[in-house]
Amino acid sequence: VSARALPGDDRHEPIVVAVDCNGADLGAAEVAAGARLAVANGARVILFGPGAELGSESEGLQIVDAPLSIAKSPDPVGATRSTPEASIVQCAKAVAEGRAQALVCAGATGAALAAGIFNIKRAPGIYRPALALVLPIPGNPVTLLDVGANTEARREHLVQFAFMGGALAETLLGVANARVGLLSNGQEPSRGSKLILETHSELSERAAGSERFQFVGNLEGGDLLEGRADVVVTDGLTGNIALKLLEGVSQTMLNGIRSAAASSPRAKLGGALLRPSLRSHFGGIDPEAHGGAYLLGLRRLGVVPHGRFHRRGFAEAILRARQAVADDLTDSTHAALRAAGALRPTPASAQSASLPPSQ
Amino acid sequence: VSARALPGDDRHEPIVVAVDCNGADLGAAEVAAGARLAVANGARVILFGPGAELGSESEGLQIVDAPLSIAKSPDPVGATRSTPEASIVQCAKAVAEGRAQALVCAGATGAALAAGIFNIKRAPGIYRPALALVLPIPGNPVTLLDVGANTEARREHLVQFAFMGGALAETLLGVANARVGLLSNGQEPSRGSKLILETHSELSERAAGSERFQFVGNLEGGDLLEGRADVVVTDGLTGNIALKLLEGVSQTMLNGIRSAAASSPRAKLGGALLRPSLRSHFGGIDPEAHGGAYLLGLRRLGVVPHGRFHRRGFAEAILRARQAVADDLTDSTHAALRAAGALRPTPASAQSASLPPSQ
Repeated sequence: VSARALPGDDRHEPIVVAVDCNGADLGAAEVAAGARLAVANGARVILFGPGAELGSESEGLQIVDAPLSIAKSPDPVGATRSTPEASIVQCAKAVAEGRAQALVCAGATGAALAAGIFNIKRAPGIYRPALALVLPIPGNPVTLLDVGANTEARREHLVQFAFMGGALAETLLGVANARVGLLSNGQEPSRGSKLILETHSELSERAAGSERFQFVGNLEGGDLLEGRADVVVTDGLTGNIALKLLEGVSQTMLNGIRSAAASSPRAKLGGALLRPSLRSHFGGIDPEAHGGAYLLGLRRLGVVPHGRFHRRGFAEAILRARQAVADDLTDSTHAALRAAGALRPTPASAQSASLPPSQ
Repeated sequence: VSARALPGDDRHEPIVVAVDCNGADLGAAEVAAGARLAVANGARVILFGPGAELGSESEGLQIVDAPLSIAKSPDPVGATRSTPEASIVQCAKAVAEGRAQALVCAGATGAALAAGIFNIKRAPGIYRPALALVLPIPGNPVTLLDVGANTEARREHLVQFAFMGGALAETLLGVANARVGLLSNGQEPSRGSKLILETHSELSERAAGSERFQFVGNLEGGDLLEGRADVVVTDGLTGNIALKLLEGVSQTMLNGIRSAAASSPRAKLGGALLRPSLRSHFGGIDPEAHGGAYLLGLRRLGVVPHGRFHRRGFAEAILRARQAVADDLTDSTHAALRAAGALRPTPASAQSASLPPSQ
């Protein structure tokens, strides 16, 4: 089994990224501004969104007027089906038809996922796509997945996430034989829900039978920061809560430092003296510097930046998507699953037609 | 239905706290040192642990030589049953028999929970005990539960947690009509797993029919820090991961500030000037200053400090347990569930005899 070929698969063609501009907190124009930054850095982009807000086309930048947004729909699966003219649906179709090689969705994850599954479709043998985010932990980046594609997971889903995450760490971060861990409420193999115990057991067996797969067992929440693993696997509900908590605590503490450094003349002077050193310590944890989450498990790559990003973050998302296509991330995740025998053992045609998870 | 009376229920008697010293990272002597600090602040304590390490008895401090520890057992339920001489079992029995009014366990949560359920027993109508921790979020303390008593939860469990958490916030923190939220992967009511959707629906209905119960809906991970709720409900697996992540990120960032402030002569001077202001901002987030998690849903109160605490943290746990007994926390949580009609509708005798959840 191998990922089905799509039109435009020739890697000598320039890589084009299809970008849905609807759904961003700061509006479509901010996403378009990000796209222009990315184009200035060599990217080729097709924008989908309200044409009146997106400015004019230029070398490397094509614009498709698609004002209709389903980013705020409470039923993204239904909206994706019933609204072919929606910007995210047109954007996903451009990727499915080979006019672009990757999708970037500035807005709602649920709509991006549904449009991706219906149009780009799952790669053969994949149970569920997953959102993988590379957390900028200083000294030891950690790939956390799933951070929100699926609110429920089964053992076989988490097992696939483990191999997809490992392939991402190897392909994009250069980590050979990534150490994979499973998020739980204790490090001991006896800790966790039934799902975690079953997944722990299967990943342990797979690691025992493979030289290339390193399973470091259960990890607690705090272990995400301790360099004990390169890849951390969890369901999309827990992963999303963990991610937003991590972002929230970091931001609250950075705000606390700022506020402490404004609280008195003495503190102001101290803050000014300490600032360069704090910048070099904490500058790396800015989420916008990292582009967003990779949507893995479709026949083409997606990248989902946070809806509250500024142009800089959207530009980064587009450039990361382009780089991941150049690095063959989709093929390498699929190859890792195939090599591990972790693909779903049914005909590919049956799954591509199946429905996406209800979000 | 009301909580069954236990011997020694007369509130004019002095409050005694039973403390299991086994399982602490720094050893039983550190817990005993904490108990002495608490006794110096007016507490009365019975210590259970290796007599040789606990020092001598004094006014208000009784020592029971119980060297056998099951804190590290991978099967705390089985170990609790088969090891009546274990320190945590003797400690729980002292509470069940009215020799003490609350239990503090310095070590393993699983053993404390199993020993509590077998000996102190669940309060009538309680499905599952829960561990509730008051997170020291500056300006808006948040009671998070469950932080680890149950790795799986059903709707009716989470509903009871909501009312128990509300009663805790009112009784201990003086928050009338606490705002209760449900941890999920998005604020919209449509977001979350099947369990979260069901629980959201029941809590919404209950809030609509009550003037005293305020349900603020789904919360994202980052909302824990935003003052949107006084009580946040989740299952024990997610709650434990969230708690340890919160502690880990806070600690890592405080370490980062320290390390930044030692990186150059200029930064050192800045750090020295900024230190008092940083202390007043971040001093409150020290977990040891808050004593530990409250074990709710038994006929008597438990408090579970973190195993890595120092004497100061253990002293705080003992003093908080004593204060919560004086404030009638156990009765007030039960009364809140009774008033809400959220108690389990079966004879009390049937549940007290049922088995604890497998941890």
